Amino acid sequence: MTLPAPQQVRADLDRLLPLFESRYLQPFQQGEAANLALAMTYSLQAGGKRIRPVLCMLAAESLGAPVEAALSCAVALEYIHTYSLIHDDLPAMDDDDLRRGKPTCHVAFGEGPAILAGDGLLTEAFTVLASDPALPPSRRVDAIRVLGEAAGWRGMVGGQALDLEGEARTRGADPVSLAELQVIHRLKTGALLRASLELGAIAGAAGAEDRAALREAGEALGLAFQIQDDILDATSTQEAMGKRVGKDEGKGKITYPLLLGLAGARNALREATERAQCQLRSLPNPHSLMALATYLAGRSA
Amino acid sequence: MTLPAPQQVRADLDRLLPLFESRYLQPFQQGEAANLALAMTYSLQAGGKRIRPVLCMLAAESLGAPVEAALSCAVALEYIHTYSLIHDDLPAMDDDDLRRGKPTCHVAFGEGPAILAGDGLLTEAFTVLASDPALPPSRRVDAIRVLGEAAGWRGMVGGQALDLEGEARTRGADPVSLAELQVIHRLKTGALLRASLELGAIAGAAGAEDRAALREAGEALGLAFQIQDDILDATSTQEAMGKRVGKDEGKGKITYPLLLGLAGARNALREATERAQCQLRSLPNPHSLMALATYLAGRSA
Repeated sequence: MTLPAPQQVRADLDRLLPLFESRYLQPFQQGEAANLALAMTYSLQAGGKRIRPVLCMLAAESLGAPVEAALSCAVALEYIHTYSLIHDDLPAMDDDDLRRGKPTCHVAFGEGPAILAGDGLLTEAFTVLASDPALPPSRRVDAIRVLGEAAGWRGMVGGQALDLEGEARTRGADPVSLAELQVIHRLKTGALLRASLELGAIAGAAGAEDRAALREAGEALGLAFQIQDDILDATSTQEAMGKRVGKDEGKGKITYPLLLGLAGARNALREATERAQCQLRSLPNPHSLMALATYLAGRSA
Repeated sequence: MTLPAPQQVRADLDRLLPLFESRYLQPFQQGEAANLALAMTYSLQAGGKRIRPVLCMLAAESLGAPVEAALSCAVALEYIHTYSLIHDDLPAMDDDDLRRGKPTCHVAFGEGPAILAGDGLLTEAFTVLASDPALPPSRRVDAIRVLGEAAGWRGMVGGQALDLEGEARTRGADPVSLAELQVIHRLKTGALLRASLELGAIAGAAGAEDRAALREAGEALGLAFQIQDDILDATSTQEAMGKRVGKDEGKGKITYPLLLGLAGARNALREATERAQCQLRSLPNPHSLMALATYLAGRSA
């Protein structure tokens, strides 16, 4: 989120990101596998937008909870997100050599170390959550269960597997349908974004109703985020995105602009964002979270 | 453990393994990513010896606890072990095409799906632990923290990274020392075996003293296990092992027989096993666990 943001969003980021960063690299300062720690911190510091941690922290605040309660959840989410990028970028997966304007982890450190760096970050996410003294054990296990289901084979990992299969089918002239595309996105991108808000709900000790509202807002935001990603891949430049663009179509990837046209995709993006806002409105203190959701729908990188 | 075992060990395995197997594949029966579930269950069913789960269940029983308390810990340990084999076998790592007499996961399903199957199993280990109603939340987070530290970059993943680096150094005529080899083994194999006993201690509600005894026994057993593995690689046949043998030396891997000679390695194995037995002796009900430790030191596959 390095682009101009409205005042509310900018103020929230200036307040939350230093807190987050102070916790984020802490675990990796000592250890026998020094090069592995280097590979992990390389990817953690590659300039991500920290969307999931910020969503999580703002979700906790939207319930009136102190942001400190959500810090380990925020850190765990970004570890999971970063590991998934490292593994998705591997030659056997999406085969990307550039990410956020820097060489991807396997280009910088080699394939074996990159696989291990991903494994290390995935594992550390759960270790950090389990060790957080700011949350009672019952809420820690709740958060670990929700994160595990969102990140695992029923969620993000499953979505990436279906995406790989879909690309192979599309290359074989048996393209995926819109319904199949929606399943892929719900799992691959949506599950972790939904979990970002749900972990914020758990950290903020939400009641059942507020938790459901945050879950559903997260579901809608996840969809909006993916549509926007597809639109940007179709319309943006490599310079603005910090990664190769226009590669979706070249790789036979089915996207929203391809299926619905650019105007149709923009319409679907607007609808999903409005659905999220509608859920958030009823929370005790939703303004920052709503401002971020609006900003994300209009992001240009 | 398909080889002849003494009566006590055989009776324990006959009692424990059906319980374990009934829980082990349960999570993977429904889900949208069907091929991914296939790849995960393929590796889970590839005929492993279930050493870590059995150690964990016997550790809980050595404290007088019911084995059911340790079931999710046992399952989580085997998920972690299986994921680590899938990733270690990848072309970018140890590049093995045969494991337990069957094609490795990436040979059977492709590299991308194998990476994801490993990621899915790693994640599921923590999800299963977090969701276990047989343990109070405080013990679940304790188990997750111990497992995460043992499996992650400070433990098993770190050991595999150091092992990869060590092989490259050895090929470059700068071989690792015995001290470095011991660090690699302590992390790569030892950490998860130690955690097997410590998770049993947590599941069995051990006091501090019994927990420390089980930890230290696990540390010694982990070393014994690795020495025995090296001895078997140097002396056994591919048929008996179900994987390629003699490849350690071919790949420039430093092993205990190479460093200490075969007799010296067998001596170190005996010492480590005795150290483990000495720790176990003081537990309330240690006989099954001690019998298994003795059996493992003499295993031939």
